[in-house]
Amino acid sequence: MTAAPTTPTTLGPDSDLSRVFELAQQLRVDSVRASTAAGSGHPTSSLSAADLMAVLMARHLRYDWATPDNPDGDHLVFSKGHASPLLYAMFKAAGAIGDDELMTTYRRFGHRLQGHPTPELPWVDVATGSLGQGIGYAVGIALAIRDLERRASRVWVLCGDSETAEGSVWEALDKAGHHRLANLTVLLDVNRLGQSGPTELEWDTDAYARRVEAFGCRAIEVDGHDLEAVDLALTEAADGRAPTVVVARTVKGRGVAEVADKAGWHGKALPEDLAARAVAELGGVRDLRVRGPRPPGHPGPAHPDGRRAGPVEPPRYEVGDEVATRVAFGAALAALGARPEVVALDAEVGNSTHAEEFAKAHPERYFQTYIAEQQMIADAVGMAVRGFRPYATTFAAFLTRAHDFVRMAAVSRITMALCGTHCGVEIGADGPSQMGVEDLAMMRAVLGSTVLYPSDATSAAALTTTMADLDGISYLRTTRGAYPVLYDGDETFPVGGSKTLRESADDRVTLVGAGVTLHECLAAAEELADEGVRARVVDLYSVKPVDVDTLARAARETGALVVVEDHHPEGGLGEAVLSALAVAGAHPAFAHLAVTELPGSGTTGELLDACGISRTQVAGAARALVAR
Amino acid sequence: MTAAPTTPTTLGPDSDLSRVFELAQQLRVDSVRASTAAGSGHPTSSLSAADLMAVLMARHLRYDWATPDNPDGDHLVFSKGHASPLLYAMFKAAGAIGDDELMTTYRRFGHRLQGHPTPELPWVDVATGSLGQGIGYAVGIALAIRDLERRASRVWVLCGDSETAEGSVWEALDKAGHHRLANLTVLLDVNRLGQSGPTELEWDTDAYARRVEAFGCRAIEVDGHDLEAVDLALTEAADGRAPTVVVARTVKGRGVAEVADKAGWHGKALPEDLAARAVAELGGVRDLRVRGPRPPGHPGPAHPDGRRAGPVEPPRYEVGDEVATRVAFGAALAALGARPEVVALDAEVGNSTHAEEFAKAHPERYFQTYIAEQQMIADAVGMAVRGFRPYATTFAAFLTRAHDFVRMAAVSRITMALCGTHCGVEIGADGPSQMGVEDLAMMRAVLGSTVLYPSDATSAAALTTTMADLDGISYLRTTRGAYPVLYDGDETFPVGGSKTLRESADDRVTLVGAGVTLHECLAAAEELADEGVRARVVDLYSVKPVDVDTLARAARETGALVVVEDHHPEGGLGEAVLSALAVAGAHPAFAHLAVTELPGSGTTGELLDACGISRTQVAGAARALVAR
Repeated sequence: MTAAPTTPTTLGPDSDLSRVFELAQQLRVDSVRASTAAGSGHPTSSLSAADLMAVLMARHLRYDWATPDNPDGDHLVFSKGHASPLLYAMFKAAGAIGDDELMTTYRRFGHRLQGHPTPELPWVDVATGSLGQGIGYAVGIALAIRDLERRASRVWVLCGDSETAEGSVWEALDKAGHHRLANLTVLLDVNRLGQSGPTELEWDTDAYARRVEAFGCRAIEVDGHDLEAVDLALTEAADGRAPTVVVARTVKGRGVAEVADKAGWHGKALPEDLAARAVAELGGVRDLRVRGPRPPGHPGPAHPDGRRAGPVEPPRYEVGDEVATRVAFGAALAALGARPEVVALDAEVGNSTHAEEFAKAHPERYFQTYIAEQQMIADAVGMAVRGFRPYATTFAAFLTRAHDFVRMAAVSRITMALCGTHCGVEIGADGPSQMGVEDLAMMRAVLGSTVLYPSDATSAAALTTTMADLDGISYLRTTRGAYPVLYDGDETFPVGGSKTLRESADDRVTLVGAGVTLHECLAAAEELADEGVRARVVDLYSVKPVDVDTLARAARETGALVVVEDHHPEGGLGEAVLSALAVAGAHPAFAHLAVTELPGSGTTGELLDACGISRTQVAGAARALVAR
Repeated sequence: MTAAPTTPTTLGPDSDLSRVFELAQQLRVDSVRASTAAGSGHPTSSLSAADLMAVLMARHLRYDWATPDNPDGDHLVFSKGHASPLLYAMFKAAGAIGDDELMTTYRRFGHRLQGHPTPELPWVDVATGSLGQGIGYAVGIALAIRDLERRASRVWVLCGDSETAEGSVWEALDKAGHHRLANLTVLLDVNRLGQSGPTELEWDTDAYARRVEAFGCRAIEVDGHDLEAVDLALTEAADGRAPTVVVARTVKGRGVAEVADKAGWHGKALPEDLAARAVAELGGVRDLRVRGPRPPGHPGPAHPDGRRAGPVEPPRYEVGDEVATRVAFGAALAALGARPEVVALDAEVGNSTHAEEFAKAHPERYFQTYIAEQQMIADAVGMAVRGFRPYATTFAAFLTRAHDFVRMAAVSRITMALCGTHCGVEIGADGPSQMGVEDLAMMRAVLGSTVLYPSDATSAAALTTTMADLDGISYLRTTRGAYPVLYDGDETFPVGGSKTLRESADDRVTLVGAGVTLHECLAAAEELADEGVRARVVDLYSVKPVDVDTLARAARETGALVVVEDHHPEGGLGEAVLSALAVAGAHPAFAHLAVTELPGSGTTGELLDACGISRTQVAGAARALVAR
């Protein structure tokens, strides 16, 4: 089953459909060969979509395989990432990879042809494999291309039928319809069979079409194995009139009689003997090369040029004034708009998060996703793919809604800034549904993330500005209420640093807080000072990475640490400090105050007290450590 | 604005609509009064839905306010939980609470009339306030009532228009249509205005209706302030033919001219003077009492009777046999089916998670939610509301999709068991999109959760069984691959315990692992023993609560701990151990091995090694600690 060492024949946009059929068969053969060689993978899910992809790559996808970062190239998002054999077979057909790489490295350690595609491959923009995300990303990419860059390139998505059970697919299509993204086409591969049985709608392509149309997109129903019909549908889809979903009725395992439309073959490589029969049935190994349509030329500047211009003038605050960190975030974000690569995304709470300040200053780079947090993150990912610097903001509690999208963005090595406002029980009367008390755990556990939690307006503004130059996913946690400004505008707040706000040679305990609890620590230190107990106070504004040296020194010099956080005890500030102390080999006496019971409504003071994280309890914990 | 101390007039199901109008005005007046008295809240969002709720409670909701746990009573889910003034005004109209409680405790500390409703109130089944969740819960409740209990009661949902931007709404309606849940009615309050501006679809009720119909439900469009039309719509909705969404065009702030259909009034209590004018405009304070329809009688046994029957015979395994913990989970779950309150939910991966074993044994209590993890959790919550014991299972990585639903389930104090399979880089070739490496952080941070992570089939089966008697949300983390059975079938695994698998008086280091890393620890201990270094090995199967005493003793007796986990370093096993040591005041030398880089595809061995969590690296870390 190795490829014949012949000179490849090239197939261009004008080749007739019989040649495209040969390409489709080659994609099938290579999907079977690669997965059988790997011993795992999803050949049958690849076979159903091979005709769709053959027509797309030969005649419609305007893409420069040698220069994948050509800013005028189309995008192809493989939402059904498990069909990676098909995608990699396309790479081979495009001449982007060789048969050897396909046959010897797929799904193997240390190689880039992974089980599900990731941007480690230059032709892949976003990692997929958690289903139902691809259309969302594509919407973000298409928005950036059309509304931010004003280019003519298109975004194509291959989506499975099973994944339409994910609500996120409908969040995405709703936005495609809302924005009338005529540069977006989804190829929906309705192969009827899911992982463990038939899909909910099986081959009811009318039902899919009705849903698509109801969500404001155009649906075109086709037989996904009728190359002419597919070609016409893709031509129509690209007519610039509407976002389109080509609802393609297909057969899972198409082309291999022993597995076609049969249950029990999801996610299984064909055994060697069956693979050999399949390759024969499909006409044997081919070596066609595709040279599809080229990207349209673009009159404007190349992709990332012209960015990072403009002076950023962050807001300044007077020490002692009471300003909410969310307010400072909004003001700093608006100021950051001077950098043309910065975009802001809102989930219909911009007047609470203060992200709307950006909207007032830079309406053309402000995107309202309504109450659809998953799509907000998907938009951010798509815009980051196009080189923009997204800031996506909602209540800290509601970022949990998009956890899987944030997780996958980390796999895609996306750079974006998230801000979660209204953290903790501090918010008061609205009650527990609105209180983010698990966001630090969620965001710290994101691979490569930076987690920042300012206590005053000056640091909030500075850190908001800093985030525009960080790599990876950064998270800013902000507070609802207004608290005194602690720092002068010239203070700097390096990532991985901290601020020691009270310090003396006689300190007998260190109080560590961030956000509202830092203010409680300061008040507790006053109270302790009145009793003759000197307490050091550390503002741990950088939760990840954390300031190991300062914490270790505090542990050594004061012998005791109280960490207090407006968050559940697991995965937040306290455990970040414990990990830092473990790294440093420091062993202070330790107390950890956090939210351990379900809060209700109340005032901030009542709730901090009821949850055991108020100044009184900080002072009490400090006294107990000092008296030990 | 206090209520007049008159004797209330009672309004029954046969009262004419002019009386129902008076009730609606009373609900409006009380919504305004309560939120103004509290100084915060959402009066305008309450005013739009007052007519809908008046008709519902007077004529359609079959509910015994004095006996809210009557199993034959209907359910009302307030998906737009911010309209709590309206809900609480209904409670007052029903005689469930007094005017004094409404006027003096709403949104105040220590009281049950919180900013958003929670089940602390006996008439509330599920906490709401994170939008887009109510229909999902209602689907779960309706399924339990119809398919598990075979009762005639109905489920009604008040849903806002803004929240339909959440994909979860469409996951839920898809399932309502799929299951043909004719006992479910959604009242969609299309008031056109969101928090910060007009909604995406504004008053395009046709668009809503098309979406609803496309998702397999019946849509009835009405003027939401035309009481007769609403009454007819609710009568039709209850005809037993189809799940129904009453798409009601309404006016936000209806009845108060100064705020009606005006932007800028979302989530704002009316100032005292405006509130006084509003109450006057609405006809003043009333004291109508509603005695609506009664629950239908049910011939069968009362709600929770007849449960907990049947002997459970968990599977047994031979020590040394290689069995995956996910396999043991599936077998134990199937055995647990002997308890009729146990139900299982799958997100179309039952053949991978082995939840399908339950389907084979108890198909009538197995629910396929397809690839819709949010709805899977919503179904589980709804079934738990009806007294069932749900086990919901998917890949650990994909539980992140439902994080907000899990968070809210904790606010609702729901008891349910979750199982996440395919955890960690251990899974191998499928790559990072399928690897759950943040699930421990997510699940540990859930309020009141129990987190279990078995290393062998015996403990996996035992813990699966144990979960059926735990309160709150419990989580079982299982592994893809097969590893040797370590424990005899008679061993017990109490929550909060651990197992010390190797121990001697000469131990110089303790190796702590769970799941695949425990097997690496055992191998490392062998390697160290060959070098003359005795290592203790602890199986930390209970991650939350964690076995503080055993860890403290190990720290004291061996002086050094290596914790190794197939998870990111934040919020997982390592930080759980650090927190335990901090509680105990134990200060061993400490090394923490965890996944800190993005993994790719590979074999289990290659990936454990590449991520620094293999036996070789465990032994190396132990050596370094011993040599310190």
